[in-house]
Amino acid sequence: MGLVVQKFGGTSVGSVERIQNVAERVAKTHAEGHQVVVTVSAMGKTTDELVSLAKQMSDQPPQREMDVLLTTGEQVTVSLLSMALLQKGLKTHPMTGWQAGIHTDSIHGKARIDRIDTNKVKKCLHAGEIVIVAGFQGLSPDGEITTLGRGGSDTTAVALAAALNADRCEIFTDVTGVYTADPRIAPQADKLKEISYEEMLELANLGAGVLHPRSVECAMTHRVQLVVRSSFSDEEGTTVKEADQMEEEMNVRGVAHDLHVARMKVIGLPNQAETLSTLFTRLSEAYINVDMIVTSEHEDDRIDVAFSVQDEEGDYARQVIVDLRDELDYLKVLSETGLAKVSTVGAGMVTNSGVAARMFYSLSEAGIRIKMVSTSEIKISCVIPRDQVQMAVRMLHTAFGLDAKEEILVEV
Amino acid sequence: MGLVVQKFGGTSVGSVERIQNVAERVAKTHAEGHQVVVTVSAMGKTTDELVSLAKQMSDQPPQREMDVLLTTGEQVTVSLLSMALLQKGLKTHPMTGWQAGIHTDSIHGKARIDRIDTNKVKKCLHAGEIVIVAGFQGLSPDGEITTLGRGGSDTTAVALAAALNADRCEIFTDVTGVYTADPRIAPQADKLKEISYEEMLELANLGAGVLHPRSVECAMTHRVQLVVRSSFSDEEGTTVKEADQMEEEMNVRGVAHDLHVARMKVIGLPNQAETLSTLFTRLSEAYINVDMIVTSEHEDDRIDVAFSVQDEEGDYARQVIVDLRDELDYLKVLSETGLAKVSTVGAGMVTNSGVAARMFYSLSEAGIRIKMVSTSEIKISCVIPRDQVQMAVRMLHTAFGLDAKEEILVEV
Repeated sequence: MGLVVQKFGGTSVGSVERIQNVAERVAKTHAEGHQVVVTVSAMGKTTDELVSLAKQMSDQPPQREMDVLLTTGEQVTVSLLSMALLQKGLKTHPMTGWQAGIHTDSIHGKARIDRIDTNKVKKCLHAGEIVIVAGFQGLSPDGEITTLGRGGSDTTAVALAAALNADRCEIFTDVTGVYTADPRIAPQADKLKEISYEEMLELANLGAGVLHPRSVECAMTHRVQLVVRSSFSDEEGTTVKEADQMEEEMNVRGVAHDLHVARMKVIGLPNQAETLSTLFTRLSEAYINVDMIVTSEHEDDRIDVAFSVQDEEGDYARQVIVDLRDELDYLKVLSETGLAKVSTVGAGMVTNSGVAARMFYSLSEAGIRIKMVSTSEIKISCVIPRDQVQMAVRMLHTAFGLDAKEEILVEV
Repeated sequence: MGLVVQKFGGTSVGSVERIQNVAERVAKTHAEGHQVVVTVSAMGKTTDELVSLAKQMSDQPPQREMDVLLTTGEQVTVSLLSMALLQKGLKTHPMTGWQAGIHTDSIHGKARIDRIDTNKVKKCLHAGEIVIVAGFQGLSPDGEITTLGRGGSDTTAVALAAALNADRCEIFTDVTGVYTADPRIAPQADKLKEISYEEMLELANLGAGVLHPRSVECAMTHRVQLVVRSSFSDEEGTTVKEADQMEEEMNVRGVAHDLHVARMKVIGLPNQAETLSTLFTRLSEAYINVDMIVTSEHEDDRIDVAFSVQDEEGDYARQVIVDLRDELDYLKVLSETGLAKVSTVGAGMVTNSGVAARMFYSLSEAGIRIKMVSTSEIKISCVIPRDQVQMAVRMLHTAFGLDAKEEILVEV
């Protein structure tokens, strides 16, 4: 008898039948004696359809309006799932983000949760109701509807689990767990039974795509036990928890990739303390997420700085830099879109300097050009041409001994 | 320079292009120096699509969930219209019902507006913003999302106009105004330049369909000047205002019809004071709107009561009566669906007793069987078979001298 938060993504609620399956699963958890809070995303292609409507209205649809528009998607799912559970004779309470007390900041399209007022949710749980909360959305201090940005429903689920002090948070998705690489491009990938928050965070950040990085961050901060599992099977998933609970350590735990990378290069910046600070402050003010940063000094006391951003933000990032031309006094800016990133991740990596060497060796052996490198305590990332990603992931997966004993069949 | 509330229905916002037309019209009103509040319905077929989703989930979708579901329709329109206006360089503020401070009672699906907290709307208007409010929806005292039921967006517009003390409330629709009869079935119908609240209320109640009765009621109570006009032309519409402002009086102002009528007949009720009271109290508790009521006494001290309801509520009404069998001790219940109602309306009718006579004469002349009659100070209604409505309306329109000098062309 405990409190469980369950999150179902867009594919899991993609049709009336699938929502009925979700109801089945929620009902089962409830029948086991648990209190259940369910968070859902918009049905399958709904968000894409809404975005297409907006694009017909405006080339650059304003973000405040996009939030009003997109949040209808989860609201629809919440009502339908509630109907399906009521059909089974269960008591439910459907809620939008604001009704569930999810308060965010005012950054439309990328809002962060400030706090959750759990009074209403707790009251409903106490009354024996299954609480169904629209993911991805909240309310700003001005009373405006906000969205949490990509993967926001994961964040909603984890934040609710943290605020309610839930026993666990189950993320139901279209894969059966966290793999050592994306099984769609590396068929020899193996499912992990457990992984630490830190490793999962790197994998999430690196584009493994199973969990949104912010949700992992939130789970790590609040020590929420996460389980990633499939909506479509009863197979045991992957548990994300504290590293000290892990049974064994390996050097490299997985190979991740991100297919949407752009690289900016600002050439010949004056080598002054404030130059880099100004550059990255302005990018941050424009809400552009900068990932890897590499700098190199010239002999003439100028420096070059290269950094990577999400591919879709590439053009905008370039524009921000162009607008800073006078202020920064650089020589020129180069940008390259259509790149990718491949990374090896593992908690034990920092103690094993041979990992980087082996990674570079494998990639160069395969004739892959490394355009940028960045390392942290538990990962090494390389930016490479997008069309070489599949080969790179497979090479590295084999090189680091991650291949499953038998190849698994994956539906793509 | 004044404050204008404009309401655009589902057909008027049925596509991206039409929403852009609406933006054009709103921008024009704003450019004339008015403060503008816009209320919109869901786009064209959206509501039907959502209802169909719900029906797949549940035979009788629960009303609380339906409200959560259906209110997304207007929310989508609000965001798209805001985008269209922003594209024109105007300042806007999109709002859901709860954001606009629309507080209702708790009757899901048929909620009534209790009060409107206009603070936020006023603040936005003061800041020069065009306020765009999702019609048809509000917030219950428990913080649940409610809908106002059919035609609810008209009510939202009029209630906002009343609460904001607006100079006028313009209802944009797919017809050019209020006609002496429905031009689709009586091509000789003529457009009225003005009509009194009372007459409009009868016409609205009688199924003229241009305005929802509750919105007219609300306009009458708060003396809001209503203008009904077309979204698709600049033609002058019909102004609904106080009778004493009217320039001329006619006996019969229009012929209305309602195609969705069911008749219940409870035979052999004990003739006791509480019998009818119990019957209609239970129907009201089941949220069934009863329209016409006719009773007749037997010689054996029992009475028959016949009444009409909306066709779609016919089966439910019958069930409520069947459940009361023991309590009411009646002999039998008969129900007939698929009927219609035709009515003549005019403020001067009560002073001219010949109107009823002429009406019955015209109908019987045409071989139309009158199944029920009900009269008020300004209307006479007859329930007749549905397939004879068109003939009835045309006959009465001609009989009461309402035919336009030239037949008008109407797109159906």
